[in-house]
Amino acid sequence: MKFDIMRDRLLAGLNDVMKAVSSKTTIPILTGIKIDVTHEGLRLTGSDADITIQTYIPVEEDGEQLMNVSATGSIVLQARMFNEIVRKLPTNEVEIEVSAGFATNIRSGKSEFHLIGLDASEYPLLPEVAEGRQFSIPTDLLKSVIRETVFAVATSESRPVLTGVNWRILDNELICVATDSHRLARRKIQLEQLPAEINSVVIPGKSLNELNKILEDTTDLVQIALTNYHVLFKTDDVLFFSRLLEGNYPDTSRLIPEEYKTNVTINGKALLQAIDRASLLAREDRNNVVRFETLENSTVEISSNSPEIGKVEEQISVENLEGESLKISFSAKYMMEALRAIDGQDVIIQFTGTMRPFILRSIHDDAILQLILPVRTY
Amino acid sequence: MKFDIMRDRLLAGLNDVMKAVSSKTTIPILTGIKIDVTHEGLRLTGSDADITIQTYIPVEEDGEQLMNVSATGSIVLQARMFNEIVRKLPTNEVEIEVSAGFATNIRSGKSEFHLIGLDASEYPLLPEVAEGRQFSIPTDLLKSVIRETVFAVATSESRPVLTGVNWRILDNELICVATDSHRLARRKIQLEQLPAEINSVVIPGKSLNELNKILEDTTDLVQIALTNYHVLFKTDDVLFFSRLLEGNYPDTSRLIPEEYKTNVTINGKALLQAIDRASLLAREDRNNVVRFETLENSTVEISSNSPEIGKVEEQISVENLEGESLKISFSAKYMMEALRAIDGQDVIIQFTGTMRPFILRSIHDDAILQLILPVRTY
Repeated sequence: MKFDIMRDRLLAGLNDVMKAVSSKTTIPILTGIKIDVTHEGLRLTGSDADITIQTYIPVEEDGEQLMNVSATGSIVLQARMFNEIVRKLPTNEVEIEVSAGFATNIRSGKSEFHLIGLDASEYPLLPEVAEGRQFSIPTDLLKSVIRETVFAVATSESRPVLTGVNWRILDNELICVATDSHRLARRKIQLEQLPAEINSVVIPGKSLNELNKILEDTTDLVQIALTNYHVLFKTDDVLFFSRLLEGNYPDTSRLIPEEYKTNVTINGKALLQAIDRASLLAREDRNNVVRFETLENSTVEISSNSPEIGKVEEQISVENLEGESLKISFSAKYMMEALRAIDGQDVIIQFTGTMRPFILRSIHDDAILQLILPVRTY
Repeated sequence: MKFDIMRDRLLAGLNDVMKAVSSKTTIPILTGIKIDVTHEGLRLTGSDADITIQTYIPVEEDGEQLMNVSATGSIVLQARMFNEIVRKLPTNEVEIEVSAGFATNIRSGKSEFHLIGLDASEYPLLPEVAEGRQFSIPTDLLKSVIRETVFAVATSESRPVLTGVNWRILDNELICVATDSHRLARRKIQLEQLPAEINSVVIPGKSLNELNKILEDTTDLVQIALTNYHVLFKTDDVLFFSRLLEGNYPDTSRLIPEEYKTNVTINGKALLQAIDRASLLAREDRNNVVRFETLENSTVEISSNSPEIGKVEEQISVENLEGESLKISFSAKYMMEALRAIDGQDVIIQFTGTMRPFILRSIHDDAILQLILPVRTY
């Protein structure tokens, strides 16, 4: 294998695949990046066994020569070291040459590195993803869907399936649900040409967070392909594979109340900031709980108190207040995350009493629903 | 005590004094910020017993009313909490009122916090700094002096006096020296009106680092006052007190060789980058050592090798190479820090053989001298 390439392009590709490489892996070859060179281009692969990321750099793009290939081949190079070497090379031209025994030379300007590579044939193969079960989503919409749901997955491994986001297809709708059993986030999207044969998959929250970091905020389509064990997200430059979580995702639809006794319409940003202030005192306690109370004159009061430090109270005018008066307590963290997911618009909060779950929605549409279980303090 | 103040100004003052407050303090009242309000203005004080920072906000500045004082007084409020509350208040007007029992109300818009303060009379008094032993330095020059020396202080407490920077006055020159006994940084400055009666003080490196963060990059003068136990740095807005280190600072002048056998003039930036690349492999070993070798044709070679990972070699053209040929090994970290202190100009490196300390200077002046002890590998 021997080729030269523009350093900036190699570095950009490495930055993406590095996101899959974990220093904690127990599989030695996965501390490396696989480099495959053909006469058409260069493919980089990084993986931690759960997530695999591939990027592709063609020999020529838009008439510009990005690399010259003298001899094809494959090698695995220690990921962190290779990435840092490429980042610090003195010129924008890099020559990489592999000779017998996986000995690898990296040359740039008057600088020459000799690394000992690993046998690329020992690198794990990628999962096979069937062509049939595919659909696509604009990249920016996919990023929104991830942002609006993934924060609500469980962080504890006591029920592993809850550490993922459940994607279900029902008619022409993709329904994404995350819950840690104390709160729930649900996002629905209408999509065309959804495959019928997939009912429900669970994508690890960690995978979606990494995917979100790699995707750029464009309207280009992301191709999504599903198998029983894997999901593949495909853009022009990047292939992102993730293992799916096994196990049955719980039916969450019956958690959502059907009748409400108190409805509050309120500016989401004003409420978020008031909760943020109240949580300054609340978080000194173990449970980070704030109180929410309806008052007369279209006003609610947010309050919190910590016996050792002090207390805080704040009144907020609401757009609309209907139904029974209410005093309720909840986690400031859950409420702030739910409000951030709805993103600053006017929100409707619907309660069914002090000890029942309540829901938050945008006044504009039902696409995002956030549900929170209250905490008993009164 | 009762006053209202512009939130932005209070927050700017808090940001500075917070740098002195440590969460690790064993003196409970030092977890707080002291607030002193007079009819002239407000003074904030933060301290960790070693460093004390004060900021002052006048009632009126350049014709602009910054605060209104209804009742004077003092209080100590928990630093982190008070800072976060002020940062998150909903409007730019803050009213602070202290009533009986140190109960403190902080109001802004419709938000109201009640905190339990501490008795300001229990807060430690500031050291007295005599008027006589003072001099001044432009702020940007003081920042340079700190940057060029403080990195070389010892991090280990085995010889506590080496964790500080030694400031000595000799005739019209201030000489600043830091050493951890493996390398040394020295900076000399000509100053006028230096006090004659101070020979030598040792300022903790940590204090200088914190001071450097607070000082802005201006040509305004910083007033410096010294006592036997403290130093005070004074700008228009900020008073910065630091305890001095006790003990005799070693005489470092005899460490610096007087004769040299090999002189190399080289571009500092090119050398820094080559050492940085070589250190990628070197730092996998315990000692982070790179090799430096003079070659024919005005060239030096930087190299490093790590038996398990690989090796790196790089040749650099030098401006000038005089004297005996040389192979020497040294810490990449020390060399990079020394070159950064000299800051990218052409440097002269003067060697006295493989096992003797060598020095680095700018070709333009002798104000900065960096000395490094080599490592035996050949």
